[in-house]
Amino acid sequence: MSRSGPRSIVTAVLVGLALSRLAAAQSDPLPAWNDGPAKQAIARFVADTTKEGSPKFVPPAERIAVFDNDGTLWAEQPLYFQLLFGLDRIKVLVPQHPEWKTTEPFKSVLEGHVEQALAQGDKAILEVMMVSHAGMTTDQFNDTVRKWLETAKHPKFQRLFTDLTYQPMLELLNYLRAQGFKTFIVSGGGVEFMRVFADKSYGIPPEQVIGSAGETKFQLDAGGPVLMKLPKVEFIDDGPGKAEGINRIIGRRPVFAFGNSDGDQQMLEWTAAGQGSRFMGLVHHTDAEREWAYDRASHIGKLDKAWDEATAKGWTVVDMRKDWKKVFAFDK
Amino acid sequence: MSRSGPRSIVTAVLVGLALSRLAAAQSDPLPAWNDGPAKQAIARFVADTTKEGSPKFVPPAERIAVFDNDGTLWAEQPLYFQLLFGLDRIKVLVPQHPEWKTTEPFKSVLEGHVEQALAQGDKAILEVMMVSHAGMTTDQFNDTVRKWLETAKHPKFQRLFTDLTYQPMLELLNYLRAQGFKTFIVSGGGVEFMRVFADKSYGIPPEQVIGSAGETKFQLDAGGPVLMKLPKVEFIDDGPGKAEGINRIIGRRPVFAFGNSDGDQQMLEWTAAGQGSRFMGLVHHTDAEREWAYDRASHIGKLDKAWDEATAKGWTVVDMRKDWKKVFAFDK
Repeated sequence: MSRSGPRSIVTAVLVGLALSRLAAAQSDPLPAWNDGPAKQAIARFVADTTKEGSPKFVPPAERIAVFDNDGTLWAEQPLYFQLLFGLDRIKVLVPQHPEWKTTEPFKSVLEGHVEQALAQGDKAILEVMMVSHAGMTTDQFNDTVRKWLETAKHPKFQRLFTDLTYQPMLELLNYLRAQGFKTFIVSGGGVEFMRVFADKSYGIPPEQVIGSAGETKFQLDAGGPVLMKLPKVEFIDDGPGKAEGINRIIGRRPVFAFGNSDGDQQMLEWTAAGQGSRFMGLVHHTDAEREWAYDRASHIGKLDKAWDEATAKGWTVVDMRKDWKKVFAFDK
Repeated sequence: MSRSGPRSIVTAVLVGLALSRLAAAQSDPLPAWNDGPAKQAIARFVADTTKEGSPKFVPPAERIAVFDNDGTLWAEQPLYFQLLFGLDRIKVLVPQHPEWKTTEPFKSVLEGHVEQALAQGDKAILEVMMVSHAGMTTDQFNDTVRKWLETAKHPKFQRLFTDLTYQPMLELLNYLRAQGFKTFIVSGGGVEFMRVFADKSYGIPPEQVIGSAGETKFQLDAGGPVLMKLPKVEFIDDGPGKAEGINRIIGRRPVFAFGNSDGDQQMLEWTAAGQGSRFMGLVHHTDAEREWAYDRASHIGKLDKAWDEATAKGWTVVDMRKDWKKVFAFDK
């Protein structure tokens, strides 16, 4: 009956190895994360909060996880992608606005001097955003964003912007959802801009996207009711606004929050101040090769005070270079 | 072997009857609804939109159902319950505000002349709402509302306000959820007020409650961060604001909407204007015995233009007296 000659033993060992590797691969929900303190902190938090009978158990209905978008779920350099969209729209819309050729900040944008345009300050940036984000219906705006995302390329990577989502964070979103967490975006970016790709890119449905918003106006047109986008800011979902937006729209305090900049500090503080187990995380951009390296001195995604607070309070700070095996799905 | 004497036949028939009645009771998800056109329209809409392969099939992610609250899910007479809460607060807070005894509209409220206070107009009502809804943290406000709902009694029914939810609408919410619909409240009432009871009373979690909102301010107190409620309106979720709020917060167009007054007209129009199968419903208060009868001439829950539009467009109008077997769970 025995067939255990040398060959069959080797076969058995090889099959065993292959199976155990397969099992390891299947059992690691975060393969793009190196096995460092950040990955361990995530695993520990999830284990603690999802195990029935654990003193740190969190009922499913209260498993609210919030994520900043720019610099946390996808890249944000050399400029916020939504601002790049706005700048592109100026070039497309100029035939209907010949006066822009001689009016700042549009003149600089049209002549290719984006930095000069942006150097004119917040008012100039707001003006670019308003003309590109208002004066149309919500449906028209969504179509415009969708087409731009399908064709426009990132200046450095020459890839679609939606290719620049972070693979480790996509895994984290999936992992949390598989463990009964409800994932939300809470971003300074425009809510209507993000909804165009959030469901497909992140698996986050429109009703779980919170962001800055412009006013809209309901009106009855010949074809029926429409919502016109007005050139007026309704809400800025940044800094303290993130805690306020979470309260206003989710109405529960998150137990898990991830950001990357000082604009996320109050969201993390608001999360941390709740009872029971909490996870507060920051992505630190330390990878000049695969992505970018920036923090305290950056104009975009400045990470300074929130970093100090994270260090003082033991929040998780992800070192992108060390903690992430891959940044983007296309990394080898 | 045969036992089919007359007695066993009778037994079999009786058992059969009992079983078929039991099956009918189990299979009717809306037992508090009489079998009229409203119930039939609901059943038809749900059957059409949830049957795979049906030309009117709606994918689960798009099964968004929105409900007004006051007058649609619970009663709203003789005054909106949230306003009754505000008036009660005046009496509780007067020791800290002795000046109210000689200042309108507080003077009239404190002397028991509520109608005189309200007759002073919107500004007076807003003042009552502001002093009762601002100047405290969100947590303090929630506690105050919770305690009020646990003790305060409705002036006519002498029951808790949460006993005045409509049994047929509770069944409808459950039925829709069992069929894969996601149920939202979209109400002119205050979002933070409603969240205190919406989960327990309606099974609608905080993140699916949309309402009017006051501004809040994030601040770091000695005990940590808090959100202070400011005496400033941020958003009125009524009339056109309902369509705007749905777009801003849900970001998808509902396929099912239920209201009871002209303040719901734009929400119903916005729902109706989408592609594919739609359900638009209005509760018509026709039951002076079990509840109240009011419509075109009412100061609260006025149903006039929306009723005309419903008639013209074939939307479902629930005749409370005829269509509902029970109004409240305590009705016999």
